[in-house]
Amino acid sequence: MNFWNSDRAQKIAQRENVDAFIATSMSNVAYATGFWSPPLYCFVEEAFAVIPVDNPGIRGLVCFVAGWDQIVDLGLEDIDVIPYGKFYYHRKDDVQIDKQDLRIFNETSNASDLSEIEALIALVKKYNLDNKSIAIDEKGITLSQFDVLKAALPDAKWKMGHSLLREIRTIKRPEEVERIRAVAEITENAVHKALEIAEEGITELDMARVLTKEMAQNDAVPVLICIGFGTKSAHPNSLPTTRELQRGNIIRFDVGARRLLYHSDLARIATFGEPSEKIVRYYNALLAGQEAAINLVKAGTVVSDVFKAAMDAAHSEGLPHYQRHHIGHGIGADLYDEPLITRDSDIQLESGMVINIETPYYELGFGGLQTEDAVLVKEDGCEFLTSGNRPLYRA
Amino acid sequence: MNFWNSDRAQKIAQRENVDAFIATSMSNVAYATGFWSPPLYCFVEEAFAVIPVDNPGIRGLVCFVAGWDQIVDLGLEDIDVIPYGKFYYHRKDDVQIDKQDLRIFNETSNASDLSEIEALIALVKKYNLDNKSIAIDEKGITLSQFDVLKAALPDAKWKMGHSLLREIRTIKRPEEVERIRAVAEITENAVHKALEIAEEGITELDMARVLTKEMAQNDAVPVLICIGFGTKSAHPNSLPTTRELQRGNIIRFDVGARRLLYHSDLARIATFGEPSEKIVRYYNALLAGQEAAINLVKAGTVVSDVFKAAMDAAHSEGLPHYQRHHIGHGIGADLYDEPLITRDSDIQLESGMVINIETPYYELGFGGLQTEDAVLVKEDGCEFLTSGNRPLYRA
Repeated sequence: MNFWNSDRAQKIAQRENVDAFIATSMSNVAYATGFWSPPLYCFVEEAFAVIPVDNPGIRGLVCFVAGWDQIVDLGLEDIDVIPYGKFYYHRKDDVQIDKQDLRIFNETSNASDLSEIEALIALVKKYNLDNKSIAIDEKGITLSQFDVLKAALPDAKWKMGHSLLREIRTIKRPEEVERIRAVAEITENAVHKALEIAEEGITELDMARVLTKEMAQNDAVPVLICIGFGTKSAHPNSLPTTRELQRGNIIRFDVGARRLLYHSDLARIATFGEPSEKIVRYYNALLAGQEAAINLVKAGTVVSDVFKAAMDAAHSEGLPHYQRHHIGHGIGADLYDEPLITRDSDIQLESGMVINIETPYYELGFGGLQTEDAVLVKEDGCEFLTSGNRPLYRA
Repeated sequence: MNFWNSDRAQKIAQRENVDAFIATSMSNVAYATGFWSPPLYCFVEEAFAVIPVDNPGIRGLVCFVAGWDQIVDLGLEDIDVIPYGKFYYHRKDDVQIDKQDLRIFNETSNASDLSEIEALIALVKKYNLDNKSIAIDEKGITLSQFDVLKAALPDAKWKMGHSLLREIRTIKRPEEVERIRAVAEITENAVHKALEIAEEGITELDMARVLTKEMAQNDAVPVLICIGFGTKSAHPNSLPTTRELQRGNIIRFDVGARRLLYHSDLARIATFGEPSEKIVRYYNALLAGQEAAINLVKAGTVVSDVFKAAMDAAHSEGLPHYQRHHIGHGIGADLYDEPLITRDSDIQLESGMVINIETPYYELGFGGLQTEDAVLVKEDGCEFLTSGNRPLYRA
């Protein structure tokens, strides 16, 4: 299954005057074609997608020839593939083989051992894009690869396409929303499980282990595991350590996972025992900020207004000195999709966007406090893709 | 802690006639500086390292300004940092703050909100490399970023440096070897745990959950989880599915994890119940191939000879039709480090290299068989970094 949004792609292509997109980074390739495989996430292989704009039926893929098992196993029937490289699937004539395996065998044994860029060039030529205007995702192709591409296609006109492809991906289909909701729920439950083991002397690593085991139990891969106790919760990137939990400590989780290509990113706060008055006051101010932002989220709202609403509410509700460079971001095939929720962004929210709204606060010597939730933008408001329950937990 | 090998870097720089290296991809930056953070692995942030060759004491880092918590928490005392971006660490004058948090506060509150490339340019100029020859890692910098860099440093001479940085990383320090050994042990134990649940009707996903939970329990992040039952074991990328285990099935694991930046990648085979004669014969042939290769591994051996030894032994010991494009690869800060063990490689093995030796075989309609182990190259032979125990397991 792929989620490519042809209508949106066509509109953006028209605006930018391009005839095709070439995706080169994992999230864009997976979005355009549905194709991914473990070696792509390990940087062992590469994949590219070529999408001509005026023929929405065509989606071309360049992948390592071994990846034909994934094309078949993922059921990518409608993908046009030119593989690169040499790989040996064996077959013995006296062994029965099903239709799917036969397809893998036939496709791979006829492959012609091209390089990645030769395969990409072949696909561009096959679609008669040689002299067209092409938006190429500049994040997954190297300078030297692009030089080879340009030399082989001297009449093509090139434009940087990474942010255009991200713009296409901004509006999620219902199936994408459900994937985000599912991994958000897994992540939120994992935080709850981790909090259950709270007692004097357990470590950040103990909690990280419970959390990531719960992710594993639900087929999610941990991608962002920041857990901090006490003053270390003020370190935004807090890697779990052997630091021990003490009474009165803040416990800050900023954690995310990936499942079926889609991401979660969630922040929750607990205190071990009763929180101080300052923790309660600050937490409520940050929650008010996040709430004020969420209350504004609907189709048509300008992003900078969402930012300002969060900051104003946090300032007036107990954190007059709060400063922040963004208060959220899209989420999807990347942990950070577009848009980023900043003071200066004039992007208008649209129905189908999924954005995380967060109001993190890092005070050195005190601690970090933060709530973060994913919401789906709708015509008349928004819908939590987390549970939306985010009290100041007592662990 | 960083593992930068100045001597090796100097030799390679001399051979290539370059005065400095710029690392841009995660593994190269982490290797050169010791710096990493969760957002780097999520593509939310970027980091660059600048290493002048003739002054081995200097290691410059460009990272997002929020990353100062990681610089302090990872104890990177000897790193020279120019951060990019704007981020707010708060501090209240009436709250006590320790020396480390004070450093984070002072460094970040004085930061000057440069872009990534402005910060990189500043570092290059600081080291007087403006008119020098620089090998730049082309994998972590975009075409447009490089254009800005070239325009700002018109007198610098540029060379592609990704493979040179990988060449520096090929020889591992003892601390790197120990990290690889530790994550290999975790991974091997996780395979054993997964095999314990084998019974009729359990699924590939059930085994994947046990395996990844065991990795999580030991602070390792799953990065490569290919598990296949029966004929699906012939799919090299086999994503775990709801396919159920049946008597006589092959169970193939090709699995890897990352812990403290270093990787494992391990293959083991079991059968559920007694294996067929064909499975035993083929497995023994592949094991003989892997053994023959490992027996040749020592300083001075040419890589192509290792490849040929594996193929010859597999051919003569029961798999005359076996074909393969490589029979191993380096392992370290990337899942695939250099060198790749291929038929045509004239690279000589050196003491301190860590390489995985594997003889995978994928026969459609039958199944996949494979053993894969990491070994440390020594003067007079090699040492397993796995247990080296790799029978055909009966689950």
